[in-house]
Amino acid sequence: METSIAGTEGQVIRCKAAVAWEAGKPLSIEEVEVAPPKAHEVRIKVVATGVCHTDWEYLYENKKGMRFRPFPLVLGHEAAGVVESVGPQVTKFAAGDQVIPLFLPQCQECDRCLSPKTNLCKRNWAKTQVGVLADGTSRISCKRQQIYQFLGVSSFSQYTVVPDTSLAKINSNAPLDKVFLLGCGVSTGYGAALKTGKVEKDSVCAVFGLGAVGLAAVMGCKAAGAKTIIGVDVNPNKFEKARMLGATECVNPSDYSKSIQEVLVEKTNGGVDYALECVGSPVVMVNVSVLLYFTSMKIQSYMYSRNYLQCVHTQKSAALESTTDAWGVCVIAGWTETESMSVVVEKLLMGRTLTGTYFGGWKSVDGVFKLVEDYMEKKLKLDEFITHDLPLNQINQAFETLKSGTSIRTLIRLWEEEAPTEEVTS
Amino acid sequence: METSIAGTEGQVIRCKAAVAWEAGKPLSIEEVEVAPPKAHEVRIKVVATGVCHTDWEYLYENKKGMRFRPFPLVLGHEAAGVVESVGPQVTKFAAGDQVIPLFLPQCQECDRCLSPKTNLCKRNWAKTQVGVLADGTSRISCKRQQIYQFLGVSSFSQYTVVPDTSLAKINSNAPLDKVFLLGCGVSTGYGAALKTGKVEKDSVCAVFGLGAVGLAAVMGCKAAGAKTIIGVDVNPNKFEKARMLGATECVNPSDYSKSIQEVLVEKTNGGVDYALECVGSPVVMVNVSVLLYFTSMKIQSYMYSRNYLQCVHTQKSAALESTTDAWGVCVIAGWTETESMSVVVEKLLMGRTLTGTYFGGWKSVDGVFKLVEDYMEKKLKLDEFITHDLPLNQINQAFETLKSGTSIRTLIRLWEEEAPTEEVTS
Repeated sequence: METSIAGTEGQVIRCKAAVAWEAGKPLSIEEVEVAPPKAHEVRIKVVATGVCHTDWEYLYENKKGMRFRPFPLVLGHEAAGVVESVGPQVTKFAAGDQVIPLFLPQCQECDRCLSPKTNLCKRNWAKTQVGVLADGTSRISCKRQQIYQFLGVSSFSQYTVVPDTSLAKINSNAPLDKVFLLGCGVSTGYGAALKTGKVEKDSVCAVFGLGAVGLAAVMGCKAAGAKTIIGVDVNPNKFEKARMLGATECVNPSDYSKSIQEVLVEKTNGGVDYALECVGSPVVMVNVSVLLYFTSMKIQSYMYSRNYLQCVHTQKSAALESTTDAWGVCVIAGWTETESMSVVVEKLLMGRTLTGTYFGGWKSVDGVFKLVEDYMEKKLKLDEFITHDLPLNQINQAFETLKSGTSIRTLIRLWEEEAPTEEVTS
Repeated sequence: METSIAGTEGQVIRCKAAVAWEAGKPLSIEEVEVAPPKAHEVRIKVVATGVCHTDWEYLYENKKGMRFRPFPLVLGHEAAGVVESVGPQVTKFAAGDQVIPLFLPQCQECDRCLSPKTNLCKRNWAKTQVGVLADGTSRISCKRQQIYQFLGVSSFSQYTVVPDTSLAKINSNAPLDKVFLLGCGVSTGYGAALKTGKVEKDSVCAVFGLGAVGLAAVMGCKAAGAKTIIGVDVNPNKFEKARMLGATECVNPSDYSKSIQEVLVEKTNGGVDYALECVGSPVVMVNVSVLLYFTSMKIQSYMYSRNYLQCVHTQKSAALESTTDAWGVCVIAGWTETESMSVVVEKLLMGRTLTGTYFGGWKSVDGVFKLVEDYMEKKLKLDEFITHDLPLNQINQAFETLKSGTSIRTLIRLWEEEAPTEEVTS
């Protein structure tokens, strides 16, 4: 793995990136230009990146589940790399540092960073959400056109530039082709259980959705000492890995005529203590009977409208309803920007708590540093999440395996030309 | 006030009660028979009771917002009285004790009572919810017919019998015609802020609905040291009392064309830290624009169906959306058995927590004892909540003032024949 930095400070770097020219079309491998970092910015050489469900949704589901973001765009937000150079006023990083770029900043200065109650620092937030850095522009261009930076990161490029408050310096010995996973999915799920849900020892947990986030949540429940961890997914191919990471049993909602919440409430004699909802795609687990019911009402034109979609009883509602009276906690980790869920108010009045997690509740810079250390000390598993290993020029294949549900995470190596000859088996 | 106990132990007591013979009809003052207490039961002489929104809803909205409960019924669940006699195996009470009956038990033995995480003891729950005591029967009868006991209490009767785990012994000097308020509304609202919401010093709070529960929530926010307490109600007549109890400002949603959540988010520069939703009636504060919008869709037959009602963007959703990103907490205290609320999932992902409270989160026996002490030590106000004072035979008038929004709480004196000559002015 090539990680040395080659005297490019202050210069525009020409390198390869996967560019999303427009929504709904495959990515295109292009030569892009990456400008030097400005004040409080760091240019990093990206070594490894994952392909996350959110990348897929922005590209292919842009009109459905996500707010509009401008194209052309370089996607990618879960990555690890090495600092190539730093801009003016950067004090915490130097060329050669191993780093993980962050879509959630931690400025260490604002009210939120100073509060123990949240990790939601908003430094540069409005700008990075629309694909630019603090000065309102991107550092990436292609064919003389500005290319927007997804969430201010854009790790599907060999080089990118990020704010110095959106970057975690990590252990210099950490394997970048493993710890890149801590840039999004694993941190989110693991923290959903440990930080946001505060899962307790000997508790009964259910994890909805066994993708990377859900499997990490399973691992978080296990780390917390939960006695029962029920994995829930409509794809039984995920169950083996879930058991490997700590699930004590797995349930496929398709195997039952009852709703999954009824199944879980029965199975646990009243409901789980913690339900962690980690389903990336809003429609994956909608109960087919609900759709049939609505269809039978002959109001199809209405049912497909936005208002209908906001009222569908989703798996998020099912997760809440699978928790026990008195102290059930439901944490939503599955990202959505437009979905609404229906909550039966009496479920709240009878003692349930519903909350959400963003990046697992971790203060991003501190949390990622610590989680890398935990991995190095073998307290945290990462290798098990990587099911596929591809070079950048085969990145569209990673989207295919994600869509088909056959991958957990595909590792994209930014500097390889060919896929490894051996298949990943972990 | 007559509180002495007159040698009636072991006998059936004939006394007056307001009987609800059927839903939707006014109460009827009848002579009822109250049987002696069985094992683990206590017969109490009810001295004072309040008329709560829940009583009204069960009587007049039975088909709409509440699950069916059997009639004939003696309503009333917020009261104070004196122990007349105790049944076998009762060890904690004796004739003459001042007590407050409880619709929420605290058995002190079950997992829930032993857990610091909940107050939701379920001792006798299933039975009392359908109007009977542990043996499946009621102790009240009238015209040779069993009369069901509302929530196991039935305080609209001069005597009633309750389980010994649903009764709080209180300070023997406490004025029963004041502390009856701690049997429901005031404890619920005060605890919603202090126990469930855990409102912090210097925080910014909004209280939706300024009935007894909401006003008590205002008082709870003040006791917690909140710096801003915004009272929200469509009835501006409630504002003066809200200010008296601690509201720093009051807002009437009808005064704005924007939604109340938009108004509050603007007013507080991003949203409140705590929103306490204390609206008893589900439809009181639905934004008119929502109804107009749905009407314009020409799907009226659908919109009035149950599914539509479950999706209406209620004031409960508005309360959640009035909270700030990062750490906003919304506590639902306004009782409903059938209502659903729509939750924009991204609001949760951005750090909000949604929960509910039942009886303000207080362990009922311990909590009521302590709150009575707080009142005696002038840490807690009660007198301000009593706006009307009527004898039992004028109880239907109390329902009228409740419905018209002119009362906070009407005190019903079980043993008076006539209303006091002086109006209540506190």
